[in-house]
Amino acid sequence: MKTSETLIHARWVIPVEPDNQVLEYHSIAIDEGRISAILPTAEARQSWQARVTLDLGCHALIPGLVNAHTHAAMTLLRGIADDLHLMDWLQNHIWPAEQRWVSEQFVHDGTQLAVAEMLRSGTTCFNDMYFFPEVAARVAASGTIRACVGLILVDFPTPYADNPDDYFAKGLALHDEYRHHPLVRCAFAPHAPYTVSDEPLKRVQVLTGELDLPVHIHLHETASEVQESVAGTGLRPLARLDALGLVSPNLAAVHMTQLQDEEIRQLADSGSSVVHCPESNLKLASGFCPVQKLLDAGVNVALGTDGAASNNDLDMLGEMRTAALLAKTVRGDASALPAHTALRMATLNGARALGLGDETGSLEVGKWADITAVDLGALESQPLYNPVSQLVYTSGREQVSDVWVAGQHVLKKRQLTHLDVQDLVQRARGWQTRIAAGDSKR
Amino acid sequence: MKTSETLIHARWVIPVEPDNQVLEYHSIAIDEGRISAILPTAEARQSWQARVTLDLGCHALIPGLVNAHTHAAMTLLRGIADDLHLMDWLQNHIWPAEQRWVSEQFVHDGTQLAVAEMLRSGTTCFNDMYFFPEVAARVAASGTIRACVGLILVDFPTPYADNPDDYFAKGLALHDEYRHHPLVRCAFAPHAPYTVSDEPLKRVQVLTGELDLPVHIHLHETASEVQESVAGTGLRPLARLDALGLVSPNLAAVHMTQLQDEEIRQLADSGSSVVHCPESNLKLASGFCPVQKLLDAGVNVALGTDGAASNNDLDMLGEMRTAALLAKTVRGDASALPAHTALRMATLNGARALGLGDETGSLEVGKWADITAVDLGALESQPLYNPVSQLVYTSGREQVSDVWVAGQHVLKKRQLTHLDVQDLVQRARGWQTRIAAGDSKR
Repeated sequence: MKTSETLIHARWVIPVEPDNQVLEYHSIAIDEGRISAILPTAEARQSWQARVTLDLGCHALIPGLVNAHTHAAMTLLRGIADDLHLMDWLQNHIWPAEQRWVSEQFVHDGTQLAVAEMLRSGTTCFNDMYFFPEVAARVAASGTIRACVGLILVDFPTPYADNPDDYFAKGLALHDEYRHHPLVRCAFAPHAPYTVSDEPLKRVQVLTGELDLPVHIHLHETASEVQESVAGTGLRPLARLDALGLVSPNLAAVHMTQLQDEEIRQLADSGSSVVHCPESNLKLASGFCPVQKLLDAGVNVALGTDGAASNNDLDMLGEMRTAALLAKTVRGDASALPAHTALRMATLNGARALGLGDETGSLEVGKWADITAVDLGALESQPLYNPVSQLVYTSGREQVSDVWVAGQHVLKKRQLTHLDVQDLVQRARGWQTRIAAGDSKR
Repeated sequence: MKTSETLIHARWVIPVEPDNQVLEYHSIAIDEGRISAILPTAEARQSWQARVTLDLGCHALIPGLVNAHTHAAMTLLRGIADDLHLMDWLQNHIWPAEQRWVSEQFVHDGTQLAVAEMLRSGTTCFNDMYFFPEVAARVAASGTIRACVGLILVDFPTPYADNPDDYFAKGLALHDEYRHHPLVRCAFAPHAPYTVSDEPLKRVQVLTGELDLPVHIHLHETASEVQESVAGTGLRPLARLDALGLVSPNLAAVHMTQLQDEEIRQLADSGSSVVHCPESNLKLASGFCPVQKLLDAGVNVALGTDGAASNNDLDMLGEMRTAALLAKTVRGDASALPAHTALRMATLNGARALGLGDETGSLEVGKWADITAVDLGALESQPLYNPVSQLVYTSGREQVSDVWVAGQHVLKKRQLTHLDVQDLVQRARGWQTRIAAGDSKR
């Protein structure tokens, strides 16, 4: 008899790597937080025993979803100001609310609310960009969820730091603290080309070479961003980053709705990643990212929800579906961005964009057991001709039944094992009362 | 003490008519299937008593959602062939499967599965177009859900009818049978300009004048449809329908992704309705319907999911969200299609497109009690600054807790009171086994 700590018998296992594969009636063994075996259930039942065994008879096991771009704490600003022109939304609602309210406690409560929502919808890893990243790191580590925490950087002072030197000092201290943490890693997170000047960007370029960390940045989000860059610097933002040596395999360029064909080739040749955020791009009227063109060129395209203030959820299943639907019409081809590719973008491509491609993002022996179980037995997924198609096109977040992060069973039959939902909701309502009073004054 | 059969106390009542209104801590009284009062809960608790009282302390009561375009029975073909070119999908998968499998039993089981999904996601009325409409009518009446059943019409023979005369004879008999039914009404449903020739369309025009029924038709779904019409008849499809006298307040034109400004004015001037199906249009790469332009011109724009073979769900909450997000980028304005407007399209505009604007689609005294309760207390909807924003941008179908159709409590705490989910799932799987065997042979 072979033994294992945990053995999960599933109707389907969709490993993502190898691509386009669906294993029916297969089981996954977990030991010391990692996947120790993937084998036919018949064989597992016959010759394996485990301390914990789970039967998921109408479920698909997929790699935990990787949300490659969010601002977790902004969940506390979810829905505060929708259906407004972008600049009205930012200048009259979001920025004033942040200036007034962002604090360590805000980031703690907002990130914890976000982590609960992400785990309940099958996300096991998120790439964050926000102030007080040390608080987000602490919340993720105790959450329990995998996080790539952005070392936020802007030119101007905020409640978090006074100037670029201060942002770097705090960020590098955080990176040192979590250097060997199993769940948390860091990325440089210069906010955007229009909020960070050349000197600090050069320093990011030097440091990312030394530390081999991803560079997580908003890029080519809107046409006006590109126009203003050309007017101010003579260069499109991507060209400016290239001149600064930042267009490299470490680059995770978020949004990219404005792209010329030579820029697509440049991204492919440099091994950069693009993080596609379709729902945020739609809601803020930013434009359409040419996803299929990027994929055809060989660019690693990941998927993110963006913050809940511009989405308004952190549901990667929904984001996958929106990405797959939208790409078809943007490309003018109903065969564009098929279901398997959408799932790969939401898992392995995301992990690769965060430099975690060897650790998570697919169900492979030796990788962390970051696993999401989706119940495809729901009425809304019947009949079921193709499990990957039902996963992407019919599954709702409520069909996520169980989630494991590094082998820890953090969502058990829809119940979070590390977080108290009622307490989170109460604290969110406390912030709502205070923030709404402030917002209505404007 | 005033008395009532049913009294529902809710945190919010969103009546849709008047527009942009949210009533906090209000109650709805139901008598003889209709809304008999809408009043402050404080007053209701003090001076009303009811046989049945319900407290929905963190819920929003909205008009039951109106799915203004679907092919309910096609739920049995959900996901059979995704991510294919449109013609490959139709000619090699959908049409052969229909020719082989469509029967009264197929329509019965498929429509019942669809009705269960629609009620579970808050839809209380659907506009159907499929073969054997008498079966759909029977299923809806017993379901219990409100339906506008399309009297399907195509030039060619199908398992349902042999020729246009046969389609008309069967359709008119169905209309006579349900003429006074409280839940079921009929519409003429010529499939599309390219499947119905002038003679039968002229007969539809004469009959719709006599019977005052809606004319439910696919129109300007794709650019090639319009091009082929111009090549074959010299006219764009809308112009051809106009020449036949069919562009009128009875017209419910579905899809309309290809529209010139003068056509938008023509639709507005004629009082026609457009049924927008954003997820189907995206998935089949049909194009973008200029929704905000249509609304600005004064066109009544409703919302539909289309069939589950091209969506792949019948979730009107999700469709509302997709419509609101997509319209912003299509218009290039983040303030386009705000949440209140999306809700109105999914309710009252749909009812008006079906000629039911005086009977359902808004929460008004005297209208049928077609009501959906959405639980906005879920973690995914916190914090809550604006209930309509959370309803449209954060609510999932799983937050639909209760549904009433003509005062009947058909969904009670997520449980269907008239349909057996397990039985529906079993029958769907039976069809899946038979149909998949047939499909794989091709």
